[in-house]
Amino acid sequence: MDKDLYYMQQAIELAELGRFTTTPNPNVGCVIVKNDQIIGKGYHQKAGQPHAEVYALRMAGDQSKGATAYVTLEPCSHFGRTPPCADALIQAGITRVIIAMQDPNPNVAGNGIKRLKDAGIEVQVGILTEQAEAINKGFLKRMRTGLPYVQLKMAASLDGKIAMASGESKWITSALARQDVQQYRAQASCILSTRKTVQADNASLTVRFNELPDSIKEIYPFDEVRQPVRVIIDSQNQMIGNENIFNNSGENWIVRKQNLPILSSNSKLIIESSTNHQVDLSELLSILAKQQMNSVWVEAGSHLAGALIEQDLVDELIIYYAPKLLGHNAQDMCVLPNLQKLSFAPQFQFESVDVVGDDLRVVLKRK
Amino acid sequence: MDKDLYYMQQAIELAELGRFTTTPNPNVGCVIVKNDQIIGKGYHQKAGQPHAEVYALRMAGDQSKGATAYVTLEPCSHFGRTPPCADALIQAGITRVIIAMQDPNPNVAGNGIKRLKDAGIEVQVGILTEQAEAINKGFLKRMRTGLPYVQLKMAASLDGKIAMASGESKWITSALARQDVQQYRAQASCILSTRKTVQADNASLTVRFNELPDSIKEIYPFDEVRQPVRVIIDSQNQMIGNENIFNNSGENWIVRKQNLPILSSNSKLIIESSTNHQVDLSELLSILAKQQMNSVWVEAGSHLAGALIEQDLVDELIIYYAPKLLGHNAQDMCVLPNLQKLSFAPQFQFESVDVVGDDLRVVLKRK
Repeated sequence: MDKDLYYMQQAIELAELGRFTTTPNPNVGCVIVKNDQIIGKGYHQKAGQPHAEVYALRMAGDQSKGATAYVTLEPCSHFGRTPPCADALIQAGITRVIIAMQDPNPNVAGNGIKRLKDAGIEVQVGILTEQAEAINKGFLKRMRTGLPYVQLKMAASLDGKIAMASGESKWITSALARQDVQQYRAQASCILSTRKTVQADNASLTVRFNELPDSIKEIYPFDEVRQPVRVIIDSQNQMIGNENIFNNSGENWIVRKQNLPILSSNSKLIIESSTNHQVDLSELLSILAKQQMNSVWVEAGSHLAGALIEQDLVDELIIYYAPKLLGHNAQDMCVLPNLQKLSFAPQFQFESVDVVGDDLRVVLKRK
Repeated sequence: MDKDLYYMQQAIELAELGRFTTTPNPNVGCVIVKNDQIIGKGYHQKAGQPHAEVYALRMAGDQSKGATAYVTLEPCSHFGRTPPCADALIQAGITRVIIAMQDPNPNVAGNGIKRLKDAGIEVQVGILTEQAEAINKGFLKRMRTGLPYVQLKMAASLDGKIAMASGESKWITSALARQDVQQYRAQASCILSTRKTVQADNASLTVRFNELPDSIKEIYPFDEVRQPVRVIIDSQNQMIGNENIFNNSGENWIVRKQNLPILSSNSKLIIESSTNHQVDLSELLSILAKQQMNSVWVEAGSHLAGALIEQDLVDELIIYYAPKLLGHNAQDMCVLPNLQKLSFAPQFQFESVDVVGDDLRVVLKRK
């Protein structure tokens, strides 16, 4: 295997260690190599804390002089909460920098690369770019489009049903599938749901440390657990403040009508619904992106799911299929009132398929 | 790897070569080994033609004396369309016979084993039994229960819809998925469908040689192609004889009311529907088994699918999922009018999951 690919792969694996904590920042990993030996390693852990390059340089110390740095994202060139990493690499005497991809952040966007080149450093950009893109789907989409990366989760029977006609839905999928959801929640910037889901299931919409797989607990200790913001659409002001979400740690951002008393000390109005109880979902997502939400994990019913899909706001579907049939009277997965012809059906493509306990987890991307 | 396992695996792979043609007989493979060398190989190809053991013994010739035979199913002990294979093995001087599993056929059922042992042959039974079961699911179920092995095929969107509200359904799945169906049809003893499907899609329900994958064409040449019997439920006598199925080669067995004129020269009444247009599906399957149908491949709509599932007559589900959503107005996969509670939902378990073209093929067994 090509050495550069090997070291960049190491840097990507380091970057992934930050995936539960870096939001709103990107995941970045860095490896410093001299004489075919890794002398420094680092990854970004949390906004406000040092970037990957700084950790790696600290570990390498004086040996950095004349070494090569592998970074999964273009080093920053601006003073944010920390000084620019490009400068740190230059000052440490690094002579070659391999970068998986340019940073689309308008504060960087090639300036970091230019700064390195201007200092006489050999720079190579574009190696394992696809993998580097994959670890920052949310951050990259937000930087490029002003919208967050939207993952819509659904749990259904083989025939696409999410509840019995009576509303009974506990549980269609297995406990293992529901635990698997915890991993996704833990990586999201926020969780989007509706008043109906919050009340019907008295859902917590929290990350529960004890339900995370052991492999994740190792890299994401209890003290570090971050609760994604819960964004709840309650366009008709039907929540009263005694719902589970208000008793949990983490913030609740509520979409409802104007000028209502605050529901709890950990809730705030994020946007107002219109007088006819409509919510502009595109505007909501745009506001979430402005609030630095990289990724939105949607857990809701068939109406919000259908509306997001119809408006082409979903980047990824995550469907858990339980190996059972609920029949035609049960409740549908997705309300698409305007779909009349087969050729207009929203199209996706299969990204991955995995057995999770008794169930199947299928991930699809918008085509 | 254990030598016995290795040679039995060879015998199983030989047996599989007959899977398109042996019905109503089982698939059987035989390998004859002497001094660690395969000296004879054979498999059963078609009812009325020699059994696997005979082909293998012919190939081995005089060398059979003192050799070991590996057979995937207990050698027969009775005079059927061919003389008993147990006798052939004895006469050839085989001294050791390894058998994957006993034949539940009441004409055999241990008699073949006994005959070999009585002749002083060392016999070992029960090696790779699971694999040996898997290549004869139909034959074995029919012998054990008097019912055929029922595979229900469905093709749906991610949300379990098989047609638009308008009835439009061409095509939800891709051409590759539809070609994949041909492999299953080609292995079935018969295809079960309904008048509605036959008329709505003007379906042919035939095996089309040119749609089979090349790997299958090699072992299943055009001249050999067998058309599974088409079993069509037309309980209200609505077919008129000009439907595609009557113009195709192969037989049509029709379920309809008594004393109607024959619809075509290649059709016959198989059982009568009752005066209130009901068909006893369990009785129908039992009749099909009596007619030596090992396996039934069901391609129909949501009503027959639901009825078979509700009556617990389905052994295997084969679902093709297209990566699209059709929404709540589209037509459901499965009509289950009596299912009220989640805990009573019919349960399956995932056997295999494969990407087929743009689609996903999921195989499940009844739990």
